Amino acid sequence: MTVHPDRLFPADPATRDVARRLYAEVATAPIISPHGHVDARVLLDDEPFPDPAALFITPDHYVTRLLHSLGVPLDQLGLGPGADTARRDGRAIWRLLCTHWDAFLGTPVRFWFESELAEVFGLAEEPSEASADRLYDELSARLAEPAFRPRALFERFNIDVLATTDDPADDLAAHLALREDQNFAGRVLPTFRADRYMTPGTAAWAPALDALAEASGIDTGSYAGLLDALRSRRAFFRAAGGTATDTGVLSADATPLADVEAERIHLGALAGEISEADAAAYRANLLYRFAEMSVDDGLVMQLHAGVHRGTHRPTLERFGPDTGHDLPAVGAYTLPLAPILNDFGTAPGFHLVLFTVDETLFGREIAPLAGFYASVYAGAPWWFLDTPLAIGRYRAAVTDTIGFRKTSGFIDDTRAFCSIPARHDMSRRTDASFLASLVVTHQVSEDDALGIARRLVGDQPREVFKL
Amino acid sequence: MTVHPDRLFPADPATRDVARRLYAEVATAPIISPHGHVDARVLLDDEPFPDPAALFITPDHYVTRLLHSLGVPLDQLGLGPGADTARRDGRAIWRLLCTHWDAFLGTPVRFWFESELAEVFGLAEEPSEASADRLYDELSARLAEPAFRPRALFERFNIDVLATTDDPADDLAAHLALREDQNFAGRVLPTFRADRYMTPGTAAWAPALDALAEASGIDTGSYAGLLDALRSRRAFFRAAGGTATDTGVLSADATPLADVEAERIHLGALAGEISEADAAAYRANLLYRFAEMSVDDGLVMQLHAGVHRGTHRPTLERFGPDTGHDLPAVGAYTLPLAPILNDFGTAPGFHLVLFTVDETLFGREIAPLAGFYASVYAGAPWWFLDTPLAIGRYRAAVTDTIGFRKTSGFIDDTRAFCSIPARHDMSRRTDASFLASLVVTHQVSEDDALGIARRLVGDQPREVFKL
Amino acid sequence: MTVHPDRLFPADPATRDVARRLYAEVATAPIISPHGHVDARVLLDDEPFPDPAALFITPDHYVTRLLHSLGVPLDQLGLGPGADTARRDGRAIWRLLCTHWDAFLGTPVRFWFESELAEVFGLAEEPSEASADRLYDELSARLAEPAFRPRALFERFNIDVLATTDDPADDLAAHLALREDQNFAGRVLPTFRADRYMTPGTAAWAPALDALAEASGIDTGSYAGLLDALRSRRAFFRAAGGTATDTGVLSADATPLADVEAERIHLGALAGEISEADAAAYRANLLYRFAEMSVDDGLVMQLHAGVHRGTHRPTLERFGPDTGHDLPAVGAYTLPLAPILNDFGTAPGFHLVLFTVDETLFGREIAPLAGFYASVYAGAPWWFLDTPLAIGRYRAAVTDTIGFRKTSGFIDDTRAFCSIPARHDMSRRTDASFLASLVVTHQVSEDDALGIARRLVGDQPREVFKL
Repeated sequence: MTVHPDRLFPADPATRDVARRLYAEVATAPIISPHGHVDARVLLDDEPFPDPAALFITPDHYVTRLLHSLGVPLDQLGLGPGADTARRDGRAIWRLLCTHWDAFLGTPVRFWFESELAEVFGLAEEPSEASADRLYDELSARLAEPAFRPRALFERFNIDVLATTDDPADDLAAHLALREDQNFAGRVLPTFRADRYMTPGTAAWAPALDALAEASGIDTGSYAGLLDALRSRRAFFRAAGGTATDTGVLSADATPLADVEAERIHLGALAGEISEADAAAYRANLLYRFAEMSVDDGLVMQLHAGVHRGTHRPTLERFGPDTGHDLPAVGAYTLPLAPILNDFGTAPGFHLVLFTVDETLFGREIAPLAGFYASVYAGAPWWFLDTPLAIGRYRAAVTDTIGFRKTSGFIDDTRAFCSIPARHDMSRRTDASFLASLVVTHQVSEDDALGIARRLVGDQPREVFKL
Repeated sequence: MTVHPDRLFPADPATRDVARRLYAEVATAPIISPHGHVDARVLLDDEPFPDPAALFITPDHYVTRLLHSLGVPLDQLGLGPGADTARRDGRAIWRLLCTHWDAFLGTPVRFWFESELAEVFGLAEEPSEASADRLYDELSARLAEPAFRPRALFERFNIDVLATTDDPADDLAAHLALREDQNFAGRVLPTFRADRYMTPGTAAWAPALDALAEASGIDTGSYAGLLDALRSRRAFFRAAGGTATDTGVLSADATPLADVEAERIHLGALAGEISEADAAAYRANLLYRFAEMSVDDGLVMQLHAGVHRGTHRPTLERFGPDTGHDLPAVGAYTLPLAPILNDFGTAPGFHLVLFTVDETLFGREIAPLAGFYASVYAGAPWWFLDTPLAIGRYRAAVTDTIGFRKTSGFIDDTRAFCSIPARHDMSRRTDASFLASLVVTHQVSEDDALGIARRLVGDQPREVFKL
Repeated sequence: MTVHPDRLFPADPATRDVARRLYAEVATAPIISPHGHVDARVLLDDEPFPDPAALFITPDHYVTRLLHSLGVPLDQLGLGPGADTARRDGRAIWRLLCTHWDAFLGTPVRFWFESELAEVFGLAEEPSEASADRLYDELSARLAEPAFRPRALFERFNIDVLATTDDPADDLAAHLALREDQNFAGRVLPTFRADRYMTPGTAAWAPALDALAEASGIDTGSYAGLLDALRSRRAFFRAAGGTATDTGVLSADATPLADVEAERIHLGALAGEISEADAAAYRANLLYRFAEMSVDDGLVMQLHAGVHRGTHRPTLERFGPDTGHDLPAVGAYTLPLAPILNDFGTAPGFHLVLFTVDETLFGREIAPLAGFYASVYAGAPWWFLDTPLAIGRYRAAVTDTIGFRKTSGFIDDTRAFCSIPARHDMSRRTDASFLASLVVTHQVSEDDALGIARRLVGDQPREVFKL
C-alpha cells in the first residue's frame, strides 16, 4: 500500500504541475480545525488509543454504514447494547473491514484510511483477508508506542487549533485543564452546541434543562430562564476560549416568537403538553435567538441544517443514534433564514456559516446569500459531501458568485482523531487542483493562486471563526 | 460515417490510455440486460424486422420526441390513429430523420444511431437529405438477409440474459416457448410489472382486474383477491424464469393501509366511487405490498418513480401514451419510502433497485440509502439521463458514498432491439473513462479498476438481479 | 494586466487546439444581443459616459453585491437616497473596488472587468490600492475621447442587434428616433416587459395602469381594458421593431381565470380590496394571457421565473430594488406552465424561451420541455449562472436531450454597455470549449462543430428571437 505523491491532482500534465506547486505551498501548513468531534479528554489524559477496531471502525459511522450496506450486521461491528469494550472482539471486527476492503474502492473512506495507515502508522501492506491479522498486530504495536499517544500525534499532525463540540451543560473541565497544562501547547477550543434544548416534547428535554440549570445556576423552568442560562454558558464557553457555536437542525426555519408565546410553549412542554406545531415553532424561535445572542456576544454561528436523523427505527432502537441511517434532506436556507437575515444579516461582527448536505444549495442559496450579506459564509462541503469530487463541485458552484473570501475554509468534522491530517490533506490537494484549473485557463495567475491557497488554510478560517 | 475506436474516452492522453485498457477488458463481454422492453415474441417468431422507419423511428420516442420538437408533426412520423403499417410511408419517415440529422448532433440518440448503422448494419454513408434514399434501400436489403433476423442478431450481439417487461396477466407464452426451443440457447426472462392494478378510478382498472382474474383463476373483485392473484402470478413468473419486478409510479409514497381500508377503496372503485386521495392511498399501499411480496418470494423490486406521464393532453388524446411528452418530476425516495425501509430495509435477500430521472437524487437520496440498507441498490441513470455525460455525473455523485458494489450495473431499458449493443458499449466506455480518472488521480490502482470494470458488466448485475 | 488569448479554453493541449479553431471561427462575428438592459437613449444622445465609478460600479449590482458582502456599505458605493451624481465621489468609489480587487479572483465579474479594461480601454496596469488613482485618471481620459462615446463603441463592438427592455407605457421615443437617424445604422429593438401590470395590491399598480392608459389611449380601469391596452402597446412595440416580450415572475404558475373572475379581482384591487390568493391568481392568469397574445401576434415570449426580489427589507427600504439582495428561488416550469403548454405548446410560430437561476431545471425540466414542444427553447444560463463554469454545466445538462437547435444562443442581460463584448466573448470561448470536448471524444466531427459554433452566434438567436 503506497500513497502516491500526486494523488487527487488533475491528470493533464500542465495542470498537474501547477497543482503540485500550489499544494507544495500548503502541504505542511499547520492544521486549523474549527469544527470537529474529538473529545478534549483524549488529549488531556493522553492515554494510548484503544485497539484498532475501537479506534478506526466502531465509532466511525462512515465505515460502519458502508459495511452494513454490504450485509454486515452492526452488532458484528461492536455496536449495540452488548457492545461494551470488554466483550467486543476487536480483531474480528478488523477482519470484517479487511475482507470488505474492495467494496471501499473509489470512496473517500478508503482514501483516508490509506493515507492514515500509510502515513501515520507506516503500514506497507494493503488490508485484505490475508493481511488482516498481521495488520492488526502491527497497528496494536504502534498504538502502544509513546509516539502514537494523542499528544504526540497532535504535535506530529501540526495542529494549530482544534475545536471540539460540547453541550452547554458541559463543565469544560478537560478544556480548562488543557489550558492550564504547561506540557501542552496546543489550542483546544470548545464549541457551544445547544441542540438538546431545542426539542421540547421529547423525553430528553426536561433532563437537559435540569443539567443546564445545574451547570449555570439559573432556573431553566421558564423560557426566560433558559435564555439566561444559555447566555451565561455562552459567556463561560467564551471564557474557556470558545469562539463559535453550532446548531444541527432538520429545518432552518428561524421565525421568532413573542416571548409570551415561547414561554407558553415552554411551560406547556414541561407540563407534558405540547403539539408538534408548537415544538417546531419553539425550535424556530430558538434558532432566531441563537443568532441574536451571536450578534450580542460575537460567537460565530455555525448552522448544519437538513439531515433526517435516525431514520431506520429498528436500528435506532437497538443501536442508538449516529449509526449510519441519518439521511440528507431537501435543504433550504433562503426562505427559512429570512428573519435572521432581515434582522441581523448586516449586523457588524456577526458571522453565520452555512453548511449543507444538499448540493443544490451551494449555487442556488448559500453562495448568493454569502455574496450579499457580510455576515454569511459558505461552509465547506459536509458529511456525505466531504469528498474530493464534491469539494471540486462546491468550488465550481460557489466561486462564480463569491470567489474564495466568503468560504469557510476546510472543516474536518471528524471524531476520528487519526484521520485529521488525511482529511486536511485531501482538502488541500483538491483546492490546489481547482485553483490549478483556474490558472491553466488563464483566469487567475499562479501568483494569485498561491496567495489563495495559503489564505484558505490560514487567514481564511482564522477570520471566519475569529481564531 | 465512421465510429472512432476511442469515442467517449477522455481527451487527456494518459487517461485515455488507461480507459482504452479498461474498456478492452470488457468490450466483448456478454451482454446482461436485466431491464428492457423488447417483445419476447420477436425472438420466438424470428421474422425479419420491418422496414427501417418502423424499426428505428416510429416506436422510439427518443427519436420522435426530438423531431417533434423541431416542428415535425407526429402523424408524419407514422404515429396516430391512421398510422397502421399498411398506410405508413416508411421511406418518407426515414427521409424526415435524415433531413434533420444535424439537429441530433451532440445527443446520445445520434451516438446510438451511428454505432448501430455503422457497426450492426455496416453502413458507410452518413444520413442526409441526399443519402436518405440510398440508406433506406441499403437497410431494407440488410433487413431481408438471414443474418439480420432477431435470433442471428441476438447471437451476434452476444446477449447472455435479456429481461422483458410484462403484465401479470400475460400468459408468457413466448417466454415459455423460447425456453422449450432447442434451437434457441439465449436466456429471455419476464419481468413482472403490475402498474395497471395500481390505478383504481381509471377506466382501464376494472378490465385489468378482469384479465388478471382470468389469467390467475382468482377472483379480483376484492382487494384480498387482487393480492392473491398477484402473488399467484408472481409465482408463475418465477417459474418462467423471472427474477424481478418493476413498478413505475409518479410518487414513491409507500404508506401501508389497514386491509379493511384498502378493501373499502377497492370495492368503492369497482362501484365507480373513489376520491383522488383514496386512489393515491391505494397506490401507496400497493407499493408497500409489492415490497412485502418481494421479501416473501425473493423477486428483485425495481422502482422507477418520478415521471409525469402523458403531459400534453392533445397529443395524448390523438397519439396515445409514450409519444414523447412524459416529463421528469421532482423526485423523492427518502421520505416516501420510509415505510418500506423501516419494515423491510434490512430483510435478508430483499433487493430494491431505485431509478430516477431527477439527478439531484443520486447523491442526496439514492446513494445514502444504498450506503446503509443492504437491500437498496442505486439504479443506473434512466431515460433522459441514460447518456455519456449523465452516467459520468452519476458515478461522480454516488461513488463517494457507495463505491461500485451497491450500483445496479447498466440497464438499457430499450424497445429498440438493434440498439442494445450500442447502448451497452456506451456504458462500458463511460465507466472505463470514469475508472480511468480514478486511476490517473491515484485513487484506485489499474488492477483494481480492471476488476471493477469486469464486475460492472458481470457479477454486479448478476448479483443485484439474482441472475 | 494582460488577457491571455487562450483564456477559458481547456487545458488539455489537443482539446485546446480544437477550441482555438472553433473560437477563431466566431471570435469576430457580429454580436446579436436579444435581451439586455441598456438604455436606448444612451445611443440616441451619444454623450460621453460618466465617470468610471458611475459607469462600472454603482449601477452594476454584480459588483456592488460582492463589495457589500465584504463589508463595504452600499452608500459608500454611491447608492441610496443621498447618492445623486453630484454628491458622489467617483474616485473614492473606484478606490474601493481596487482595494478589494483580490476578493474578485475567480469570479466572472473580474473576468469581464479584465477583458473590458484591457481590450476596450487598453489599460495595462492591474487594479490595486496603489494603481487606483492612476487607473481612474486613465479611464476618465479615455471616456472623454470621441472613440469612447456610445455610438463609436457600438460600432467597434460590432453589434448587429441590441434589444432593450421597456415598459409597455414607454413611448419608445429613443428607439423611434434611432430608426430615423441617418447617422446610426445599428438595430436597437424594444422588448415589451409588462411586469408592473401583474402586481395588483401593490402601491405601484394603479399608477402603472394610469400610465398605460395614457400611453395607449385605452381605459385600463377594467381587466378587459388592460388586455386591450396591452395588445395595443404590443402592436406599437412591433411597429417599432420589437420582436419579443419578457416577463419576470417568482412563480411560473399560468393558470387561466374566467374573464369574469379576473375582472372581479381587477376591480377589487382598484378599490383597494384584494387578497394574496387573488393577487397570485391574477398574476398567473396574466401570464397565460401573455402566451395567448404571443400566439396571436408572434412576439417571442421570454420567461424569467424563480427569483425572490428585494429580500433584505432594510436595504430595499433604503437603497431600493436591484441592489444585490435578489436571491434564486427553487424553480419549476413543468407543472406551473402546463396550462400554456397544453393550449399553446404546439401552436405554429409560438416561441417560448425559458430562463432559470435554478440549475436543476436545465436537465430536469427545461430540456425535456424543449425536447418535445416546438415552441419551447432552453434559455442560456442567467444571472448567477451567467459564468464560464455554469455555461459549461448548462451545455452538459441540455445537449443530451436537445442538442443545440433548441437552445437560445447567448443572452448578455446587461446594463453595463461596455461589458457586452466581454460577455459574448466569454460565451463564445465557453461554447467552443464544450464543442471541442465533443470533438476530441469523437462524438461530433470538427466540421460539424464549426457549423454549430457559427450557428450559435448567428442563425440560432436570429431564428429563436425572430430577428
